[in-house]
Amino acid sequence: MSVEEIQKARAVVNFSRENLESVLKRRFFFAPSFELYGGVSGLYDYGPPLCALQANIIDVWRKHFILEEDMLEVDCTMLTPYEVLKTSGHVDKFSDWMCRDLKTGEIFRADHLVEEVLEARLRGDEEARGLVKDANANAQDDADKKKRKKKVKEIKAVRLEDAVIKEYHGVLAKIDGYSGPELGELMVRYKIGNPVTGEPLEAPRAFNLMFETAIGPSGQLKGYLRPETAQGQFLNFNKLLEFNNNKTPFASASIGKSFRNEISPRSGLLRVREFLMAEIEHFVDPENKQHPRFNEVKDIKLRFLPREVQQAGSVDPVETTIGEAVASKMVDNETLGYFIARIYLFLMAIGVDPLKLRFRQHMANEMAHYAADCWDAELKTSYGWIECVGCADRSAYDLTVHANKTKEKLVVRQKLDEPVQVTKWEIELTKKLFGPKFRKDAPKVEAFLLDLSQEQLETKSKELGSKGKIVFRIEGIEGDIELDDKFVTIEKKTRTEHVREYVPNVIEPSFGIGRIIYSVFEHSFWARPEDTARSVLSFPPLVAPTKVLLVPLSNHSDLTEVAQKVSKVFRKEKIPFKIDDSGVSIGKRYARNDELGTPFGVTIDFETVKDGTVTLRERDSTKQVRGSVSDVIKAVRDITYNGVSWDEGTKHLKEFVTLSE
Amino acid sequence: MSVEEIQKARAVVNFSRENLESVLKRRFFFAPSFELYGGVSGLYDYGPPLCALQANIIDVWRKHFILEEDMLEVDCTMLTPYEVLKTSGHVDKFSDWMCRDLKTGEIFRADHLVEEVLEARLRGDEEARGLVKDANANAQDDADKKKRKKKVKEIKAVRLEDAVIKEYHGVLAKIDGYSGPELGELMVRYKIGNPVTGEPLEAPRAFNLMFETAIGPSGQLKGYLRPETAQGQFLNFNKLLEFNNNKTPFASASIGKSFRNEISPRSGLLRVREFLMAEIEHFVDPENKQHPRFNEVKDIKLRFLPREVQQAGSVDPVETTIGEAVASKMVDNETLGYFIARIYLFLMAIGVDPLKLRFRQHMANEMAHYAADCWDAELKTSYGWIECVGCADRSAYDLTVHANKTKEKLVVRQKLDEPVQVTKWEIELTKKLFGPKFRKDAPKVEAFLLDLSQEQLETKSKELGSKGKIVFRIEGIEGDIELDDKFVTIEKKTRTEHVREYVPNVIEPSFGIGRIIYSVFEHSFWARPEDTARSVLSFPPLVAPTKVLLVPLSNHSDLTEVAQKVSKVFRKEKIPFKIDDSGVSIGKRYARNDELGTPFGVTIDFETVKDGTVTLRERDSTKQVRGSVSDVIKAVRDITYNGVSWDEGTKHLKEFVTLSE
Repeated sequence: MSVEEIQKARAVVNFSRENLESVLKRRFFFAPSFELYGGVSGLYDYGPPLCALQANIIDVWRKHFILEEDMLEVDCTMLTPYEVLKTSGHVDKFSDWMCRDLKTGEIFRADHLVEEVLEARLRGDEEARGLVKDANANAQDDADKKKRKKKVKEIKAVRLEDAVIKEYHGVLAKIDGYSGPELGELMVRYKIGNPVTGEPLEAPRAFNLMFETAIGPSGQLKGYLRPETAQGQFLNFNKLLEFNNNKTPFASASIGKSFRNEISPRSGLLRVREFLMAEIEHFVDPENKQHPRFNEVKDIKLRFLPREVQQAGSVDPVETTIGEAVASKMVDNETLGYFIARIYLFLMAIGVDPLKLRFRQHMANEMAHYAADCWDAELKTSYGWIECVGCADRSAYDLTVHANKTKEKLVVRQKLDEPVQVTKWEIELTKKLFGPKFRKDAPKVEAFLLDLSQEQLETKSKELGSKGKIVFRIEGIEGDIELDDKFVTIEKKTRTEHVREYVPNVIEPSFGIGRIIYSVFEHSFWARPEDTARSVLSFPPLVAPTKVLLVPLSNHSDLTEVAQKVSKVFRKEKIPFKIDDSGVSIGKRYARNDELGTPFGVTIDFETVKDGTVTLRERDSTKQVRGSVSDVIKAVRDITYNGVSWDEGTKHLKEFVTLSE
Repeated sequence: MSVEEIQKARAVVNFSRENLESVLKRRFFFAPSFELYGGVSGLYDYGPPLCALQANIIDVWRKHFILEEDMLEVDCTMLTPYEVLKTSGHVDKFSDWMCRDLKTGEIFRADHLVEEVLEARLRGDEEARGLVKDANANAQDDADKKKRKKKVKEIKAVRLEDAVIKEYHGVLAKIDGYSGPELGELMVRYKIGNPVTGEPLEAPRAFNLMFETAIGPSGQLKGYLRPETAQGQFLNFNKLLEFNNNKTPFASASIGKSFRNEISPRSGLLRVREFLMAEIEHFVDPENKQHPRFNEVKDIKLRFLPREVQQAGSVDPVETTIGEAVASKMVDNETLGYFIARIYLFLMAIGVDPLKLRFRQHMANEMAHYAADCWDAELKTSYGWIECVGCADRSAYDLTVHANKTKEKLVVRQKLDEPVQVTKWEIELTKKLFGPKFRKDAPKVEAFLLDLSQEQLETKSKELGSKGKIVFRIEGIEGDIELDDKFVTIEKKTRTEHVREYVPNVIEPSFGIGRIIYSVFEHSFWARPEDTARSVLSFPPLVAPTKVLLVPLSNHSDLTEVAQKVSKVFRKEKIPFKIDDSGVSIGKRYARNDELGTPFGVTIDFETVKDGTVTLRERDSTKQVRGSVSDVIKAVRDITYNGVSWDEGTKHLKEFVTLSE
């Protein structure tokens, strides 16, 4: 059944998150972790159907990206020492703002608190003005929809001044953009404290979202659980380049768990503390971001929400081809555009509704300072538009900071066809003088001088020329340091270079697998209009947890025997299947299975005993056809793995008409 | 090439761990994590070939166990709250003994320290007696072999008394069995301190091997990284049972990372702080541990090292069938035996040398107190015999402790064909009297009484009869508690039961994937006798990282074009391959590839341009045959995935004779 047909069915029976969650829970797709012990928020266990779905999605991902593009997969550790994440910037910047109530010990995430309190006051004002009847009931509805625990327990009907209302709306529109101190000021200005007691809170403090631990017995090697898989890939850059016979561009990829110690997680699978990521780091020449296969994708039409449209306050997407988007410079470069299109194709393959997908460009203030451009694949769910895949041009940032910190070069050396003349400032040190003068500080001073940039060298050269010495300070060494031209010479030199050395830029498509899966749940879920209690999860056969349900019509021993034989054939042919020989009615067994998203049912009846034929049922349309076991297996394989349609795949099988299920 | 042939080659060229490690490093199978930052011991990153090898081994595992036996796969979180691991016993017992040098801050693992110091003294004695020339050089050799950093830096040639020598040997033989206090006594008795300074150390302290962290912003929810995947499976028992339509026996399975904060990791991939496990929990009726498919494996011959043989000080395995081993009660039950045989078949499929595999039974003092029986699959490597798979009967322990702690039943309810009469002691409480008497402690007292075992109830019943009251104490409540028969009645009652309720026992096969992989490396590695610099990793085609290397004979544009076409066919047919169009000689390209363990080479030459035929080369024998691309692909597929031999798979292809490589 096509996406359009599901949409038709949905026009009759509205999507209900409650029903979806009830099915997901009843069929053990997932459950809160440690539920026996009361659970831990933000942690979920995956049951058998979701494990299989996830494994299939990862398998598609691996083939679509790693195999198709010859990427180099690496599997790096989650435990990461402090130094690495200090250098990458995570120790200083990977945080949310929290405020503590020193009396009760409660902790609030500052931006969420300000948002909720101001919203509550606006609701109270509406009630006071007689615009709504019961602001508390409405707020409860909203909280239910957003699956939030309400912080503001009771809304008071208090009228606000018009100017204040305008201010509040202004703040709410920008709520995602405030720094901690700014949030603190808002809390003071609007007298926002603990919503229950009214008492003031501590000023917002940065709470680092990484889980901290100690590696080894001494407790002195501080480490974290990685917040992303990317750093491990960057640190292995030199080995990967060598493994790739020093050819560029190339990409590495990692699939693995990452961690984020959310202050107060909510929204089910969308915001969790432990999650599966799949990340690609594509290393490319900064001077040439063309992509050899861009031609293959250039005509794909996508919905974009570029920066300008957002700035104009609009959410109407621009629909255009990725070729046009790159040509017009809306998308920065071909490689970034190529991956955006490939992300789209991947999402289509695993069951995302194309009408619920858009690519949103990051606003300038959202992006890391080093990023050249960044687009998120956002999927629409009942929680709103959710960022599920990021696709960023991280420039040379990561390799540069790690190289600077460790003094190891992380560069590509490209042999030039024609040697070039390069003119550069160069510094030379008379090292034998440094030891006697600086003693233990000598290496520090030498390193400082050798690290000077071209601009700094130019300045210092002038200083040396005019004053006969250079003067500078180094952190950790007291006082000015003065060196004359016996110690250093700084000159502009021209050399012939046969090799160009550059730090590659990184294009990073980064997938949050759990968020994608939750969106696929919502996009695939519908109820049969003829019997709204019967829900279906219409996963594409390619990723469905199980492909076939084998159903013996009854427990008659003749049928059980044949069912065993048919099972063996399915197992030999490596079609993932389940047998359901429970006594319940065929209709009930199919219904149970529709909820598990199994695309095909194969029924074994007394005809099977006679002539070896079975019926094949399609989940979405409930159409049935009949044929030999081997013909049915061929149809299942073609439809599941070779992209063949139902009509095409079953054209050699006989139509089989039953009474309605 | 068969295992026997590799062994023949090895008889000519000895196995060298140094050479293996050099290949594994050069081909980026793995590397120390964070090497740029100096590395962190016990953490390794997997590069592209090992990622692919691991993914293939996991795929075989999943098919061999999960699909073949319809197991229920779950994926639980690694972050685990304190309470769960307190209940499971890990908080109290999952530890090694360490001693700290309070002056230098150094930390030693107590058992390793005692072992090494006594061994060094014995070596020194040998030198003093003139039995060896240079004990220090020998010790260094040994340390190199074991990849240990030597704690004892210098061995002094000091003669020991004969009685002392005997004592030392006695201690060393039992070194794995000492408790912390016992190790402390040994250190005092034999004056073992810091081997460098000679100063005494702190007494051994238990060091818990779990990584600790805090979940959430308050820092008050203590958590750990899981030390095994098993607990998540136990906690989901009720959901799994329901998912399985309440049928038993059934098994769950998990594949995922676990963590162990080793005091001082060594031995490369064999002892790491973060590792991939694959664990099965098979839930079975304690009164019936037969297995319906035992018949299929009963004739498999295995090498066992049962408890009795070890007690007799022997390491000669008993070779017998698993059927015989279970019949003779050497292996406790059929289900345990079934899994031992299935473990064997799995290890054979992925390239373990059968002559380097034995099943060793745990000694009574090695097993957890609750375990009914436990066998380790041990693989022989240059580090000795390594425990790679555990196969334990954990009895009802885990489900029982979690049920007791959480007051949730974790049981199977079996409808009885015939109702049975059951006579049991029953206690009844007059609850309305408990509140007034015990106030806030009332629930505690009630729970205590309702938890009494049959034996305890019998005793208390007698006490109530003879003294008219029962007296007891409860932790956390001061003083004696006295209750008369107005509060409680305890009587023996006979009831008719239609349902049997039982806590299932758990048979747990638990796989350390990294250790298995390292052993497969050693078992697969050999050098060509005709050119010992040429190493080969003879992975079975099924698990080899890449199946085919495509080699255009030269960079001639005709060949490049054909190579592109052939690549497309291989990609369409989903055969994992790599193309090597680097300029180096064909021999060099094959040699590089032998080190990567790629089983097949396909060469594209000028004949290919003319008639579309290619040559197919087998890695181990270097035999070549020739045929059309589709025939060659069929041969590759049959040999790789369908268990067909080289001779059988290539019988329709023409022999192709080349000069030696």
